[in-house]
Amino acid sequence: MAVNEPLNRKLRMGLVGGGQGAFIGRVHVTAAILDNRAELVAGALSSDPQKAKASAPDYDIKPERAYGSYREMVEAESKLPEDQRIDFVSIATPNHTHFEIAKAFAEAGFNIMCDKPLTFDLAQAEELAKIVEKTGVVFAVTHNYTGYPLVRQARDMVRNGELGEINAIRAFYIQGWLRQRIELQNQKQASWRTDPTKSGAAGCFGDIGTHAYNLGRFITGLLPDQISCHLKTFAEGRQLDDYGSAVIRYQNGALGTVTASQISHGRENDLWIEIDGTKGALEWHQEEPNKLIFRVNGQPIRVYTRDPNAPFASETHKASCRLPSGHPEAFFEAFANIYTAAYADMIARATKKTFDSKNSLYPNVADGVDGMNFITQCVASSKENGAWKPLKHPLCR
Amino acid sequence: MAVNEPLNRKLRMGLVGGGQGAFIGRVHVTAAILDNRAELVAGALSSDPQKAKASAPDYDIKPERAYGSYREMVEAESKLPEDQRIDFVSIATPNHTHFEIAKAFAEAGFNIMCDKPLTFDLAQAEELAKIVEKTGVVFAVTHNYTGYPLVRQARDMVRNGELGEINAIRAFYIQGWLRQRIELQNQKQASWRTDPTKSGAAGCFGDIGTHAYNLGRFITGLLPDQISCHLKTFAEGRQLDDYGSAVIRYQNGALGTVTASQISHGRENDLWIEIDGTKGALEWHQEEPNKLIFRVNGQPIRVYTRDPNAPFASETHKASCRLPSGHPEAFFEAFANIYTAAYADMIARATKKTFDSKNSLYPNVADGVDGMNFITQCVASSKENGAWKPLKHPLCR
Amino acid sequence: MAVNEPLNRKLRMGLVGGGQGAFIGRVHVTAAILDNRAELVAGALSSDPQKAKASAPDYDIKPERAYGSYREMVEAESKLPEDQRIDFVSIATPNHTHFEIAKAFAEAGFNIMCDKPLTFDLAQAEELAKIVEKTGVVFAVTHNYTGYPLVRQARDMVRNGELGEINAIRAFYIQGWLRQRIELQNQKQASWRTDPTKSGAAGCFGDIGTHAYNLGRFITGLLPDQISCHLKTFAEGRQLDDYGSAVIRYQNGALGTVTASQISHGRENDLWIEIDGTKGALEWHQEEPNKLIFRVNGQPIRVYTRDPNAPFASETHKASCRLPSGHPEAFFEAFANIYTAAYADMIARATKKTFDSKNSLYPNVADGVDGMNFITQCVASSKENGAWKPLKHPLCR
Amino acid sequence: MAVNEPLNRKLRMGLVGGGQGAFIGRVHVTAAILDNRAELVAGALSSDPQKAKASAPDYDIKPERAYGSYREMVEAESKLPEDQRIDFVSIATPNHTHFEIAKAFAEAGFNIMCDKPLTFDLAQAEELAKIVEKTGVVFAVTHNYTGYPLVRQARDMVRNGELGEINAIRAFYIQGWLRQRIELQNQKQASWRTDPTKSGAAGCFGDIGTHAYNLGRFITGLLPDQISCHLKTFAEGRQLDDYGSAVIRYQNGALGTVTASQISHGRENDLWIEIDGTKGALEWHQEEPNKLIFRVNGQPIRVYTRDPNAPFASETHKASCRLPSGHPEAFFEAFANIYTAAYADMIARATKKTFDSKNSLYPNVADGVDGMNFITQCVASSKENGAWKPLKHPLCR
Repeated sequence: MAVNEPLNRKLRMGLVGGGQGAFIGRVHVTAAILDNRAELVAGALSSDPQKAKASAPDYDIKPERAYGSYREMVEAESKLPEDQRIDFVSIATPNHTHFEIAKAFAEAGFNIMCDKPLTFDLAQAEELAKIVEKTGVVFAVTHNYTGYPLVRQARDMVRNGELGEINAIRAFYIQGWLRQRIELQNQKQASWRTDPTKSGAAGCFGDIGTHAYNLGRFITGLLPDQISCHLKTFAEGRQLDDYGSAVIRYQNGALGTVTASQISHGRENDLWIEIDGTKGALEWHQEEPNKLIFRVNGQPIRVYTRDPNAPFASETHKASCRLPSGHPEAFFEAFANIYTAAYADMIARATKKTFDSKNSLYPNVADGVDGMNFITQCVASSKENGAWKPLKHPLCR
Repeated sequence: MAVNEPLNRKLRMGLVGGGQGAFIGRVHVTAAILDNRAELVAGALSSDPQKAKASAPDYDIKPERAYGSYREMVEAESKLPEDQRIDFVSIATPNHTHFEIAKAFAEAGFNIMCDKPLTFDLAQAEELAKIVEKTGVVFAVTHNYTGYPLVRQARDMVRNGELGEINAIRAFYIQGWLRQRIELQNQKQASWRTDPTKSGAAGCFGDIGTHAYNLGRFITGLLPDQISCHLKTFAEGRQLDDYGSAVIRYQNGALGTVTASQISHGRENDLWIEIDGTKGALEWHQEEPNKLIFRVNGQPIRVYTRDPNAPFASETHKASCRLPSGHPEAFFEAFANIYTAAYADMIARATKKTFDSKNSLYPNVADGVDGMNFITQCVASSKENGAWKPLKHPLCR
Repeated sequence: MAVNEPLNRKLRMGLVGGGQGAFIGRVHVTAAILDNRAELVAGALSSDPQKAKASAPDYDIKPERAYGSYREMVEAESKLPEDQRIDFVSIATPNHTHFEIAKAFAEAGFNIMCDKPLTFDLAQAEELAKIVEKTGVVFAVTHNYTGYPLVRQARDMVRNGELGEINAIRAFYIQGWLRQRIELQNQKQASWRTDPTKSGAAGCFGDIGTHAYNLGRFITGLLPDQISCHLKTFAEGRQLDDYGSAVIRYQNGALGTVTASQISHGRENDLWIEIDGTKGALEWHQEEPNKLIFRVNGQPIRVYTRDPNAPFASETHKASCRLPSGHPEAFFEAFANIYTAAYADMIARATKKTFDSKNSLYPNVADGVDGMNFITQCVASSKENGAWKPLKHPLCR
Repeated sequence: MAVNEPLNRKLRMGLVGGGQGAFIGRVHVTAAILDNRAELVAGALSSDPQKAKASAPDYDIKPERAYGSYREMVEAESKLPEDQRIDFVSIATPNHTHFEIAKAFAEAGFNIMCDKPLTFDLAQAEELAKIVEKTGVVFAVTHNYTGYPLVRQARDMVRNGELGEINAIRAFYIQGWLRQRIELQNQKQASWRTDPTKSGAAGCFGDIGTHAYNLGRFITGLLPDQISCHLKTFAEGRQLDDYGSAVIRYQNGALGTVTASQISHGRENDLWIEIDGTKGALEWHQEEPNKLIFRVNGQPIRVYTRDPNAPFASETHKASCRLPSGHPEAFFEAFANIYTAAYADMIARATKKTFDSKNSLYPNVADGVDGMNFITQCVASSKENGAWKPLKHPLCR
C-alpha cells in the first residue's frame, strides 16, 4: 500500500446511493478501489431501507454495515472505533438529497466525495461550503472529466503559458438519450433528472451543462464575469430544459460559450472543448480521451497522446496514467483520478492534520458552488430572455 | 455541349476583379469553366486600369476585351452583337464595390454571379434586389458551400422529412489566419476584409459568419425570427470583429447558434454544421466534404459518402457529382456547382425567356439580402449588449 | 456478490510475477478485481525471493502469503484449507517460465490465467495442453483484445452470417517502441522480449503478431491451412525479429495477412483488423475500441458504437459492457472481460464440477497452442525464404 | 498565359478515348485544362467511328477534328500546319490499345499523356520505351496519385532525409465495386477491366495494385529487388484476380507490402501508404488527401495539412497547390498536377528543344515499364505459389 503512505492501510469507504437500477454508485465504487487503495465497507444504498439492505451483497458489504438510511449510517459509523469507521463517504444520490447527506457526514467529521451538481440550489451550496470549511473535512465534487490525463495536460499547458492569453472557450456537451420522454416509462436515470423537485432548477444544464462549464474553468482558470443563457425544452411536456446555449464573459475579456443538449439523435456523451489563446489553441473530446490537439499557426497540427513516458507529458499527465500509450484508458480511470487526488488530502488530514483544499487538483466545494451559481444564473438569465447575469461568486477559485 | 442544350454553345463569361494578388477571381473562373460549358472572354480585372489590362493574359483574355474598368466593360459589351457579348459577369471584388457593379450590369441586362456578402450594407442589398427583379436577370450569390453534393443531400433529407421537425442548428466557421494583424503587412486578403470602409459593418461575421448562417438556412429552410449576437475583436487595434457568437430563434421554435472565428490558431477553413431533428440528426464538415453523418437513436451511426451511384443518394446529390465515390471532390467542384445551377437559368432565360428564380438551387439575390440583414442585425444586437433584433426580412425565402 | 452465484463469495486470486518494474502483473490484478468478484490473497511476485516479498505490500498481500517463489506458493497454498486457498493463479512472467509455473499449478489443481504467448516453444505448449486436459483445471490465455465488447460483436456478426462467407482477413499490429535498442539500457520490458532465451524463437511476431493472428481467428472462426512468412530485424544487432509480414491460407480458401512492427515511429499499440465477407465487411481499431465499422456496398457506412442498450448490440456485446454508450471503456475493461468469462467456468467447476472449456468465450489452452504453432511456423517459413508451412494444428479449435 | 511562357500560347490537346460511357477520358480533359493552359482541339473519342464523332460535341471539338479513329487522327494532325496541330495526345483507352496508339503518335512526334498501366504486356512496354527514347517526345503516365501536393511533400521529406533510412513500406489499395460480377451486366468500366484480352495478365493488381506499388516507389525512390505475390479471385467465375497481396524486397534491405482488393464491401478508393524510416514515419490516405501524418517517437504526432503558405511546406508541395489551406483540393487537381509537370517539359521541348525526362516529377515511360514489370512478376510469382521473382528492371529509375 505504498501509495497510501504514511497511512499504511487502505482507506475505508462508505457509499450512499447506488442501489439496484442506479448507475453512478457502481462507478464511484469501481473508481474508488481501482488502485487497491480503498475498500468499500459500509453503505446506505437506497432511500428505501429494504432495498438498501438487499443491495448490500452486490457490493460485498457486510450485513452489519448495510444501513437502512444515511442517518443510521452516520450515527453507527460515528460510534465505531476510529480504526474501523469509514474514512470517507461517497454520495451518489439524486441532487435534491446531496445537501442533507453531506451536511450530516461533514458534521460528523467524515470526508466526502459528492456527485455533481453539488446541491439542489445555490443557497444549499453556499451553506454547505461553510460547513465544509468549519468542519475541515476533505470534500471533492466528482466533476470526473477533469480526471482525464490529457485534460490535466491541457490545464498545465495553459498555466505554463503555452497558449498565451486565453481569448475564447467553446465547450459542448451533446447527448441524445432524452430525445423521447423516456421518463414516462419509469427509466430511473431519466425520471429524477427531468423532475424539478429532484433535479433542481435546471435539467440539461444542471446535469451536463455544468460539466462543460466546469471543464473550461478547470483547464483555463479564467474567472467568470457575466452570463447570458437560453434554455429550451424540445420534448413536449417535459418540465425542465433539455437543450441550451450560454455565452460567458470572463473577467479577462475572453468570450466563452457553453452548448448542451440531451435531444440530439445518436449523440452519446459528446463533451468537447476548444480553447483559443493568443499563442496556440487546444481541442479535446471526451469520447476520444487519449488525444489532445494543439495547434499553432504556421506549424503542423500536433496531436498529443496520453503517454506517461513522453517527454512532452506534463507532470500531472504522467501521474494520472496507469497504462503505457496506445493501451487506451477511459472513463473509469478518469473517475478514479478524482478519487486519487482526494486520497492525497485524506491521508494528509489523517496523518498531518492539515491539507490545502484551496489548490486541490480535484474539484472541491468551491467548484461545486461555482457550478450551482452557474445553474442558477443560467436559469435566471433564460427566464429574462437572455439578460446578462453576474457569474462571479465570492467563493469561486 | 449537350449540357448547354438547347443553347448549343458555350456561355460567354466576363470577370470583374481577379487581378494580381487576388484569390477568389481565379476560383470563379476555374469553377465557371470546369465543365467546358463556358469560356471567359472579357474582364475588368482590377480597379487600377493598368493592372487590369496587365492581368488579362493570365486569363487568356484578348486585349480588346480587357477593360480598364467595369464601366468601360458594361458599355463596350453592351455594344457588341448579341452573339459575341458576354452572357454573364462574375463579380469578385471587395464588398463595397459589389452594388455599383452589379447595378450597372443588371441594368444592361447581363446575368450576374456575385460574390458574398451581397453588398456593403443592407440598404444597397434591398435596392439591388429591386433592380434584379425589375431587370429580370439571373442573379446568383456565391455562397459556394451550398454547392457540395452532400450539403444538397442534407437539404433533401431535411425536406423529405427524414429528420422530422428541426429543433436545433449549430453552425460554426472557425479560422485562424487573422490571429495576427497581417493586414498591417499589406496582405491583400486581410487588408480589405478588416477595413470597415471596404468590408462593411462586420469583419469576421460578414466574411464567414454569413456562410455559416446561410448553410443552416439552405439545408433546413427554416425561417428566422430574431437574433442575439456578441462580436469581439481580439487582435488589438483591429477595427472590425474577428470573433463572435450569435443565437437565433427560428419561426418554428428552433434554436440556432452561429459561431465564427478568425483568430483560432491552426484552424484553416473549418465550417461545419450540426442539425437536430425530432427523428434524426445530421453533421457535415467542409474540410471533409465527402462525408455526411446521419444519426438516429438506437441505430448505428450512418456515414453517407459522396456517391453518385448510391441508392441512398438524392437526385441533387447525384447531379452534383463529377467523379465516382472515393475519388474525392472538393472546393472547386462545389463552387462550380453554383455556376452549373445558375447556367440552367441562364439558358432558360436565353431560350425560353423565363426561369423560376424563387426556387433556384443556387443562392439568389433574396439569399444575399438575407445575409446582409443577418450582418446588420448581428452588429446592431452586439452594440446593444446582445439585445434581440428581428431577423425576419420580407425578401427572405 | 450476485454475479458469483451460486458460489456466493469472492474468488481468491494468486499472482506469479508483477514485481517492481513489471507492467502486466498490475494489469492482471486490476482487471481481475474490477468487478469486486475476486480478491488477491497470495503472490510470488518476482523470481528474486527478496524482491518478491518486498513487492507484496504494493498489492496488499499479507506477508504470510507473499511467497519467495512459485514453487513455495504451490506447496503452501495446496496445504491451506479449501476455504482459504486460492481459486486461481495468474501467470504474468516472461514467456520462458510460463510452462513450468503453469504445470505446477495445474497439477496441484489450481485454475490458471496465463499470459501469452503460452510457452517458450510449441513442444511445451502441446505438453501443457495435455496437462490441462488431464487435470481438468480452467485455463485461460490472456489474448486480452478479444475481451473488447465490439470485438465480440464482430464475432457474433460473422457467426450470424451477416458478412457471408469470409474471403479476406487483414490484421495489423504496429508499434514503435523498439525502434531504438532500448534493451541495451536495461529497459525491463524490452530486455526479455528481445532475448531469445526468454522470449522464444520470435520477437515481434511472438509478442504482438500472435495477438493479430488470434484476433482474426477469434472473430471469424476460420481454420488455418498454411502460412508463408517474412521476418526482419531492423534494429541493428538485435537477435530477434522486430518486423514481419505473413500470408495465411485458410481452409475455406480465404487469404489472410498479418503484419506486425515494433519499429514504426510514433505508433503506439495500433492493432487493427479488416475482414471481408461476401455480404459485408468489418473494421476495428484497438486504439479506438468503442467503434466498429460495418460496410455493405450500396449502403451508408454503419458505425456501431459500444452500447449495451442498443437494439443492434449482440448478447455478448451487451454482457461485456460496464458503462452506457459514450462513456468510453478501454483496455482494463477488455482485460477484465477475459477474467469474467473464465470466472464463469471457475464457478461452474467449483459448484457443478463441470464446465465446457471447448467452447469458452475466453481464449483457452487450445488457442494458446494455436498461437505457439503460429510462431513456430512463421519462424520456420521465414528461415526458408517464405516457404509455405502447414498451419493446421490438431488442437486448433 | 504567363505560366506557359515562353511559349506564350495554350497547348493544344488531342484525346483518344473518352466517348460515351467512359470515365477517365473526361477526367483527363478536365485536368488538362483546369488552369487554362491547354485547350482540347481534336479527338478520336471511340473505337467505333460513329460513336467517336457523335461524342465530339460533348467535348466542344469541332467536327473537322473529330476523327473516326486514332490512325486517322495521327495522319490528319500530322498534316496540319505546326501552329494548328496538337501538341500532345492523351490516351484514355483500355490497356490493350495503349501500345499501338502511343507508338503511332510518338513516331509522328507528338507528346503523349498515357493512362496506366502502360501497355498490355511487358514486351510492349519495353518496346514503347525505346520508341519514346528514339523519338524524343514527352511521355507521361498518369499515375495520378503522385500529383497530390502532400504526396510530393512526403517524397521531399524522404529525400531530404527526414525519415532516415527507409525500412518498410506498406501500400494498400482497397475497393469494393467489383464484389459482384457487374461485368456480366455490361458495366463498361468493369467489363474491360475483368477481361484478360483487354486488361492484360492481371486484373486488380494491374488496375490498382500498380498504383499502390508506384506510390511507394515515387515517395521513397527505393529500388526494388524481388517480389513474392499471391493473387486471388473471389468473385466466382471471374477470369482475373480481384484480390492480392505481395511482399517486396528492396535493394537497401527494406521490406514492402502491397495489398489490393476490389471485393471489400463499401470500400471506395482507399489507397493509402505507411512508410517507416529510422528517424520518422509517414502515413497518407488518398480519401483524405489534404492531410499527411508524420510521427517521431517521443514527439507529438504531427499532421501536415496541404498549405501553400506553410513554413513547413516543401517547394513541390507549394507549387502543386491552387487554393489556400482548408479549402480542400482533391482528385482533379492532383490529376492536373501530372499534366502541369508534363507541360513544363512540353514547353521546354517546343522552345528549347530539350528537356530532362529522366528526372521528371511526373511518372514517365520508365515508371510505366516498372509498373508493367511489377504486374508481370506478380502474376508469375503467384502462379508459382509465391516464388520470389526478380523485380529489378534495367529501365527502372
